Formats: sequence, structure tokens, C-alpha cells
Amino acid sequence: MLIEPGQLLKQINTPADLRQVDPIQLAQVCEELREYIIDHVSVYGGHFGASLGVVELTVALHYVFDTPKDQLVWDVGHQAYGHKILTGRRNQFHTNRLYKGLSGFPKRAESDFDTFGVGHSSTSISAALGMAAANNFKEDDRHHIAVIGDGAMTGGMAFEAMNHAGVSNSNLLIILNDNCMSIDPNVGALKDYLTDITTSHTYNRFRDEVWNMLGKVSKFGPNARDIVAKLENSLKSFLLKQSNLFESLNLRYFGPVDGHDVNHLADILSDMKDIKGPKILHCVTVKGKGYKAAEENQTKWHAPGKFDKITGEIRKKVHTEPQAPKYQDVFGHTLVELAKKNEKIMGVTPAMPSGSSMNIMMREFPERSFDVGIAEQHAVTFSAGLATQGLVPFCNIYSTFMQRAYDQVIHDVCIQKLPVVFCLDRAGFAGADGPTHHGAYDLAYMRCIPNLVVSAPMNEEELRNLMLAASEYNGPFSIRYPRGTGVMPEWRTPLASTEVGKGRIVKEGQDIAFLTIGHIGNYAIEASERLAEEGIDAAHYDMRFVKPLDEELLHRVFKKHQYVITVEDGCLMGGFGSAILEFMVDNQYTSQVARLGIPDGIVEHGEQIELHRECGFDPDGIYSTAVKMLRPSAVY
Amino acid sequence: MLIEPGQLLKQINTPADLRQVDPIQLAQVCEELREYIIDHVSVYGGHFGASLGVVELTVALHYVFDTPKDQLVWDVGHQAYGHKILTGRRNQFHTNRLYKGLSGFPKRAESDFDTFGVGHSSTSISAALGMAAANNFKEDDRHHIAVIGDGAMTGGMAFEAMNHAGVSNSNLLIILNDNCMSIDPNVGALKDYLTDITTSHTYNRFRDEVWNMLGKVSKFGPNARDIVAKLENSLKSFLLKQSNLFESLNLRYFGPVDGHDVNHLADILSDMKDIKGPKILHCVTVKGKGYKAAEENQTKWHAPGKFDKITGEIRKKVHTEPQAPKYQDVFGHTLVELAKKNEKIMGVTPAMPSGSSMNIMMREFPERSFDVGIAEQHAVTFSAGLATQGLVPFCNIYSTFMQRAYDQVIHDVCIQKLPVVFCLDRAGFAGADGPTHHGAYDLAYMRCIPNLVVSAPMNEEELRNLMLAASEYNGPFSIRYPRGTGVMPEWRTPLASTEVGKGRIVKEGQDIAFLTIGHIGNYAIEASERLAEEGIDAAHYDMRFVKPLDEELLHRVFKKHQYVITVEDGCLMGGFGSAILEFMVDNQYTSQVARLGIPDGIVEHGEQIELHRECGFDPDGIYSTAVKMLRPSAVY
Repeated sequence: MLIEPGQLLKQINTPADLRQVDPIQLAQVCEELREYIIDHVSVYGGHFGASLGVVELTVALHYVFDTPKDQLVWDVGHQAYGHKILTGRRNQFHTNRLYKGLSGFPKRAESDFDTFGVGHSSTSISAALGMAAANNFKEDDRHHIAVIGDGAMTGGMAFEAMNHAGVSNSNLLIILNDNCMSIDPNVGALKDYLTDITTSHTYNRFRDEVWNMLGKVSKFGPNARDIVAKLENSLKSFLLKQSNLFESLNLRYFGPVDGHDVNHLADILSDMKDIKGPKILHCVTVKGKGYKAAEENQTKWHAPGKFDKITGEIRKKVHTEPQAPKYQDVFGHTLVELAKKNEKIMGVTPAMPSGSSMNIMMREFPERSFDVGIAEQHAVTFSAGLATQGLVPFCNIYSTFMQRAYDQVIHDVCIQKLPVVFCLDRAGFAGADGPTHHGAYDLAYMRCIPNLVVSAPMNEEELRNLMLAASEYNGPFSIRYPRGTGVMPEWRTPLASTEVGKGRIVKEGQDIAFLTIGHIGNYAIEASERLAEEGIDAAHYDMRFVKPLDEELLHRVFKKHQYVITVEDGCLMGGFGSAILEFMVDNQYTSQVARLGIPDGIVEHGEQIELHRECGFDPDGIYSTAVKMLRPSAVY
Repeated sequence: MLIEPGQLLKQINTPADLRQVDPIQLAQVCEELREYIIDHVSVYGGHFGASLGVVELTVALHYVFDTPKDQLVWDVGHQAYGHKILTGRRNQFHTNRLYKGLSGFPKRAESDFDTFGVGHSSTSISAALGMAAANNFKEDDRHHIAVIGDGAMTGGMAFEAMNHAGVSNSNLLIILNDNCMSIDPNVGALKDYLTDITTSHTYNRFRDEVWNMLGKVSKFGPNARDIVAKLENSLKSFLLKQSNLFESLNLRYFGPVDGHDVNHLADILSDMKDIKGPKILHCVTVKGKGYKAAEENQTKWHAPGKFDKITGEIRKKVHTEPQAPKYQDVFGHTLVELAKKNEKIMGVTPAMPSGSSMNIMMREFPERSFDVGIAEQHAVTFSAGLATQGLVPFCNIYSTFMQRAYDQVIHDVCIQKLPVVFCLDRAGFAGADGPTHHGAYDLAYMRCIPNLVVSAPMNEEELRNLMLAASEYNGPFSIRYPRGTGVMPEWRTPLASTEVGKGRIVKEGQDIAFLTIGHIGNYAIEASERLAEEGIDAAHYDMRFVKPLDEELLHRVFKKHQYVITVEDGCLMGGFGSAILEFMVDNQYTSQVARLGIPDGIVEHGEQIELHRECGFDPDGIYSTAVKMLRPSAVY
């Protein structure tokens, strides 16, 4: 079903069309664009609140700037629905986030208007500054605009970029989209500061002080207050400019302005076009703007799924049978269970309380859990600091975001062998979020780090037991698990510690051995069952640990089996399968091994099972790989 | 030769001893400590300027705070010589940076006074905040102090940590050691800002404005200037406090103070002990303080090697034969050569102009090269931004520091297949800097990234040709090379592009094949020669590329050779050797393969050859591995 655009929006297929619109009609364009997004997400799902919050900004930017010649970089990018709709993709928008459809994020390959692929936060200033520097060098006359949220602004690389931008002569405009939210409410000193300037507390406090003082010095005569009035103007511009955090970094600061007044925004942006050098415009917006429920519960409506537009009821699947829980919830509840027994356990999340279910711990033990903002690097080293004091922090970071703290994992935790437990959520394919968010590489990049235990549970019980083992292990320990649900509706099993480096026999068998790691092992169970129907008796070992490997188990496997298949939801280059090959060759076994996993290329977005199928490690792929190995002459 | 300490220093074996000293003698302690460091480094070498710059700070901190109960974290840590000398390690200090000797950096395993292992920059605030948070939770009464340079302050994670610190109630003291230097002079807006507050420009400018205005409003009567005088006090404290960059982040700001007045420092630190909550003390210091030559040329004297204390002459080895150049210099000169022919080529370095020899490019093409400060993440994404505009940035980052930009390499460069050339200097063992600086992991962590070419030259000519190939390749390309010199005194060979994915035959042979990657291949040449003396005819292939592998060459090798040895100066888990195993098993070869490289553990500091020997891939190790494979029954 194609969503019907409003009268004005219907005529706008590109920003060039938009720029033909009379200024007086811009508010109407915004309204239609907002309706279109609401209609769309209610039917198809996707990110919601962020795009609603930047409707006016999106319209104003494309109206004022000559995109795509002028280059617009959206930080994170899940707020770019309006941008996509206005830049020639309205009629494909119903494929947004679907397999083979439009990406949910800006993507260079998709449109000239998408100047930089995004997904992770805090990259936009660096990228736009690079573009602007190239522009300077080529003596081009483009404008470069980075739109970044106040949450993303807490990521260290945004600060690194501002430090560089402030001494560049680049024609860079940073739009600070200040809505006090990431997925969860923002935290940290920067947020407080922005609120402070927005509400003018700083300025007001100072003015009050001066007035009070002047009250005391009224003996100076009736002119005193006049003097102060004069002083005030000077002070105000000084305080709001010269002494501003951004001005400290030599970025000219403008604002704060109402991010929902499209004409005012357009006027300001027009004015700012003529101001050379790096500058920042502080826009205050409301996440979910224009859809009441989304304004009122911004975390829930970050990406609500499909919903009834009229009632605001989020459509949930109705299940007749008990369902397996999400892995993240098993993590959250189990952490609290462990923390109740072991007071050394702490929780750390970089701005993902709800995404990682760390919020369960935060509710139960607020004094033992820390949301440090979008700041993965700090999250890891802060955890290392806790660990030096005898505590056992569980630091939960999505696999894909852990890439941003890689040095800290090596340098601050593992070299020092500190007992930090890394829980890598969203490991394997992220699904609809696509390649920027796939947790494809962690097994390879974590495995090569000394002192680190690298593990993955095949089900909920295993996750719980690995968490217990990790809390008792005196060193760095990582546990990866996927987005989505497990397989055990009755997941709250008694906690029993797992011996580090010990795998698990799922099924003994004669003809071929499956060595699997993590949840994806459940596919091997399905494949085994189908093979059994064909008279093939497959053994299946859930290795649990990529490091240390269960060498005893592996010796048994390779002594017995000529045919071995490894299965992982991770990259084949250097991952779990490679670890098995290293063991095999080091021990001079010569079995035939097929490795299934993510091949060396970019896998686009889609549902997890679609991507597993594409990569040949869905149950069907495992099954047919086994058959091909054992019956190479058969035709398939 | 043991360096003789001065009269006071001789009696100070721990900070407890120091705290017995009369305040009046502290300056003398500083002088003796400074002399001791100068004497020491002149004889034994090591880092120099940084430790001289913090002599007074070191003495004052240990004098005022109850270390090790109070916890002191040195950022980067190469300034901690004075700290080590005062904390029980004076008599071992002659082993500093030597194999099996003291580490050149704080190290937890070495002393209780070393609260956190350091080496990379910008970690100290996060670590100290973690300790302070643990302290709060445990209701302990320790102080936590992070000493961080203004260079390290530009690293994003320092900002992430301040954003968190500002909303914590932690008893954290940040000492900003502001000397305007990293190894090279600092750059960026933050540096300008700190200079600005240090010289009070901000305040002075505002005061001048007010005075000027008051001149104009003198009609308000003779009292006007009195009013202003009153206002000034209010203004001054307001401007220097409430509107300070650090105060914006809710850190109480104190300073700037002279970092070389030990008694004043001790007084201030004593006062600050009683102030609760997060706070920052801005100390202005001079890198190299007290040794004239070092003050005057701070980059050269960052780590000068051994020198004549009296004359200041740096001792250089005298060579009778032409020497091979450093790889970094081959990089620097070749980049300029390429840039002269190809105007798209740009250079990017995160604060390592001299360490990477990017300064050669910066001198020749200042408008085409960028020092972005200690900001690896930004360096990579800024490069990506340049690349989107058709330029070809060479982004030079030490292997160990590239860990800090890992996400940016994946997310901003490789997913988008942008033509950024990564030059990874100091790949393999860093030598005396030790485990925090070893470039051990890059082959493993880079190899798993799609779209990325991963290469390493065996000599200078190969480096030049790989750089040419990279500049012509339309996608991400990494080249790793070691610290130190190559093997070709006549290194300026004619540039000839290398075909991507093609290895090189160093020597054909019958009995065994060496597959090597990078400079370490030269060891295999030595091993081959020794084997030839034993009647063993070894083939040797320099693979050049870890990805894509030269499959044609590998098919030839595995068809012919039953015995294969892989050699790399990188981790065995998932590295080059594993790539060879993947090829072999995927293609159902069953040769016997021995993989030589860095084992899965922390290798400490020492000279590169000492570490290669320890890991068994020095020429001797390669030789004996071959002999053992071929003659397993022989006894060695």
C-alpha cells in the first residue's frame, strides 16, 4: 500500500521542487511531511520520533541550501526519513528497511543527497569537515552542514572534530539538534549545560547578581541602573558568545532557536550562509514532535514498530503459546539476580539503558549502575577503573558499537587483565538496521586479544550460566548474543556456573560433526534433524568458547570425524571457524572442514533469517553443506 | 653504573619519606630529582622532556596526597619517571625500558603506586573516575587524581569522561598539565583556548570593552568608574568560573597556576583536598623544564636517546657504511614524491608529524596536510570526508593507535569503500615502549574488514611501490611497516606499481616453503641461507598482501610443498598465518603448516630482536622450526 502524500508534498520530488514553494507554504509542507512520516511508520514500522523532531529543520535546510551541491551530513541518520522523502525516494519509501529495499539510514550508494553513510553516532562533524577541507583545497563554493544531536555530541569524536574545526577556515555549519534525548534521555554535564543556555539560567543568574549588587551600590546615584542597562547588552552578547563552550573552541555560536518554526529557521539559515568559517546553530526540538504519544514517551516511540495512527496503539503480535524472551531481557534480569548475591557487581551502559535492558539493573540498583552517555570508550575504561577497586563491572555494549572502544578493551582492560565483563548485544546480523549495525566482526577482533575469554551462549540458560561464570572469573570476559529472542520460554533456569573453556555436547553422531558457537547453533539442531531423515547421523557440539577453545573436546572431534562444519553468526575471516582451523592444523589433523558464517563482504539489511539464508548458514544452508560434503557426487 | 642521587633524594625511598621533608626543602628535592632524571636519561636514554616538566607536580602530589591510598593516574605515562623514582624504584631505574627491566610507563604489576597502566593518551580521567565511583560506592575516603596533558585532553575519550565526571559526585581532581606540547606542538582550538585563559585575554578583552563603553557613558557621572570597579570583581570570578569551558561541564575550575612553584602547588593541592566533587586544576608547565636544550627544542628532546649532559650533544651511532633509512622516512619522502605527481593526494596525522615523518609532507605541502591533534577517530573520518570529494588521503597512524579508530575504519571508510590509505607505522613489536605500544593485532583486526586491502612491504622499495599502488587503487588500502630501519641504503628506487593481491617470489626451493609478510621476511632470508648450509633448500615467498591473498601463488605452493612455515610480526590468533590456513583448508590441501608470530599473551618490552627471539621468529627460530619439521627425529 502506497501512502498518499498531501497536495504540496505530492508535487515535491526533489529539493529543487521544494525551493519553488512560497515561504508562506513551508509550514504546510512540514505538516504534510510529518503526516506522511506518521502514516508511513504506522503502517511499515521503523524509526519514528527522531524524524518527526527534525521535519522543520529538514525542510528549512533543503529550502535554503543548494543540495546536493551543498553537502548535508546527518549524524546517526535514523532521523533522515524526511530527508529521504524529499530527495527523490518517496515512492520507494515503502521498501524502507526491508530486504533489498531502501536503507533506514543515509547511504551514499542510494542517493547523491546522502553525502555520507551513517548509523553510528558522532561522525558527522568529522565527515563534513573533511568535505569542507576538500572544498577549500579545490576552491569550490559549497556549504557543508552537519546535523548532530545533543546525545551524539557527547561522543568523543565529535569533540575531536570540533577541536579541529575551530582552527580550520572551513565553511562548516554544525546544527546542534538539541532534544535532550538519544534513544533514552540524555545524561551528562553537556546536557545540563545546554539546558542551562537554553533556559538562559547562566545569563539570568549573572544579571540577577549584577542587579542585586547595584541595589547595594545605589548610593552611586540614580544613574546606576541606566548604566547597568547599557552594560547588560554588552554582557549578554559576551556571555552568550565569547564564553560559550562552543565559542571556547572557536566555533561561532548562534541560538538557541526554536527548531519547529520553519520560516524562522529558513531565515536564520539564509543569514548564516553568508557567515564564513566554522559555526554552530543550536536548535531546540522535541523528539516525536506532532504525535502526542511520541512526545510523551520518547523512548518507547523511538522505533515503536507498527501502530494504529488514530489510537496510538502499538501493534503487538498476539501469541497463543508462551514465547522465548529477548536475550537482552535475560541479560537484564540475570544481572540483577547476580547482583543481589554479589555486591561487587556493577552495570555500565553507554546510553543504551533500554536497548540493552540495563534499565532493569538501573531500577533495582541505581547506585550500582551507570549510564555514561554515548561514550563507548569512556564506558570501557571507566569499567576498568571500577575493576581496579575489586568490583566486577558488566559493561554492556552492542557488538557493532564495541568497535568504538576497541583500544580501551585491549589497552585498559586486557593488557592489565582486569575483571571486566563485556556483554555484546546485537552480535551477528542486526537485521533491518543493516551493515552499519551488523555485529559481524567481534569474534575476530576480540579473539586476537590476549587474556580475554570469548564466549557466546546458545540459549537463555547458557547466557545465564556464562554470566555467572564471568562474574566469578578473575579476568576479562566477553559474552556475545544476538538481537532478538532465544528459544526457551521457561528461561529462568537455576544458575549453574560454566567451566571456562568447556564446550557442550548437544548431540553425538557418527557421520559428520557440527561445531557451533552461540545462538546460531539452534539452526544446526534443525539441520541435524533433517539430516537424520536422510539417514545422516550428525554430531553437534556447542563450543560455548571461542577462546579458550575446548581442546579436549576438539581432539575427540578431529580424531573421530573426517567431516566437520563450523557455524557462526560472524565473519569468516579470522573468526570462530578460523580458530578451529588453527587448532586442527597446529595439531596436524587433516579433516575436511567447511566454515559457515558471514563472508568477506558487506551484507545489506533485511530480516536476520533472510541474511542468514543469503550467507548460507540458515538451517537449509547447513543441511545442504553437510550433504554436499558427504555426498559430493549427488546433484543438488 | 648507578646514578648517585642528591643528599635529600638519597633519603627518599617512598612518598612516606618525602612527606617527612620540611616544606622549605621541597624545592631542593625537586632540583635533585630533576638532576637525577637528567643524569639518568643522558646515560640510559628514554623519555625526557615530559618528566622534567612535571618534577614539581610529582613532588607536590606525593607530598600532599596519601599515595598509594590516594590514587594517582598519569595520562600517557611517559612523564612518570619522577613518580617511579620517588615510589621505591630508584635503584631499579637503570633497568628502565630494558628487556626484563622496569617499564617506561606506569604499570600495575610493578607497583601499588601505579594505579593504572597507561601508554596511550586520554585514558586517565575515565580510569580515575571509575576508581572514584568505586570509592563512593564503598564509602571509602580516598582522593583520585588524574594528571593529563593539554594534548591528551584533545582525545575524545577525555571529553567523554569529563561529561560523565561533571554529573558525578565523585571526589575527582583533574590536573591539566598545560605545556602546549605532545611530542610535537599541540594544535587545535582547545590549545588556543587554554593559551587564552592563561594569558587572560578573554577577561582582559571584556574588561577593556566595559571600560571603553563606560568612557562613552561618562555622562552618567563621576561614579560610573567606581561602579565598574565593583562590577569587575563580580565579572572576573564569573568569567573565569561560570563561563569557563570546564565549568560548562560542571567541573570546578582552578588556575591557571605556575606548575614549577612546588610550594605554591603543594599549598593549592592541600586546599583543594577539602573541596568535594569533580574539579580541575590548570597548571602551566614547560616541557623539558630545567634543561635548556630540551626547553628550546621540545620535539627533539621528547626522547632524545643518550646524550652528553654537559654539552647537550645527542650521541649518535657512528656508521662506517651507508645505512638503511627508517621506514617512516621512506614513507614521508615517498608521499611527497607521489603528491608532486598526483594532486589528489593529501596527508593526515593525529599529532604525530615527527613520529610518522608526515612533517616532510607538511613542510612541502602545508595546504595538503593536516595535523588534527591526538584524535585518531576524527583523523580517520576526516580522511573519509576528504575521500568523498575525490581526494586520496594518506592517513598515517601507528598500528597500536589505530585500535582507537577501529570503528571509523569499518563504519566510515570500508563499508563505504572510500579510497583512504592507512599507513600503520610501528606495526609489530614497538620495542622498548612495551605491550601498550606493540602493534601486534592489526593484521587480525584489519583482515576481517570487508573491502579493505591489507598489505605489508618487506623492504623500502616494496613500501614505495605499495604506496603508489594504494594511491591508484579506488578503495580502502592499508600498509603496515615496523618501527626502525629497513634494509636498503639505496632506497630511492624507481616507483613501480604493485599489482594488488600479488605476492613475490624471493627464492624458489624444493624442501620447504616460507610464506612471509612484511619486513620480518628478511629474517627468513637469513634462515634460508643457514638451511642451505645444512643442505635444505627452502623456497621463500613474500606474500605482500594478507588480503586479497595471492591465490595463484598459494595453489602453486600447496601443490608443491608438504611443509610450509608462515612468518609474521603479528598475533597468531587470526593473523596472516590463519589466512593461509583458511586458504589451505578451504581448498582441501593438507600440508603441514607451522605458524610463527606473536603468541596469544602479553609480550613485555625489550629490543625488537629480543622479543622476536622470545617468540621464536627471529632467524634462529625460523631456522630451527624448519629443521624440526623436516627432521623431527633429530634432537635439538
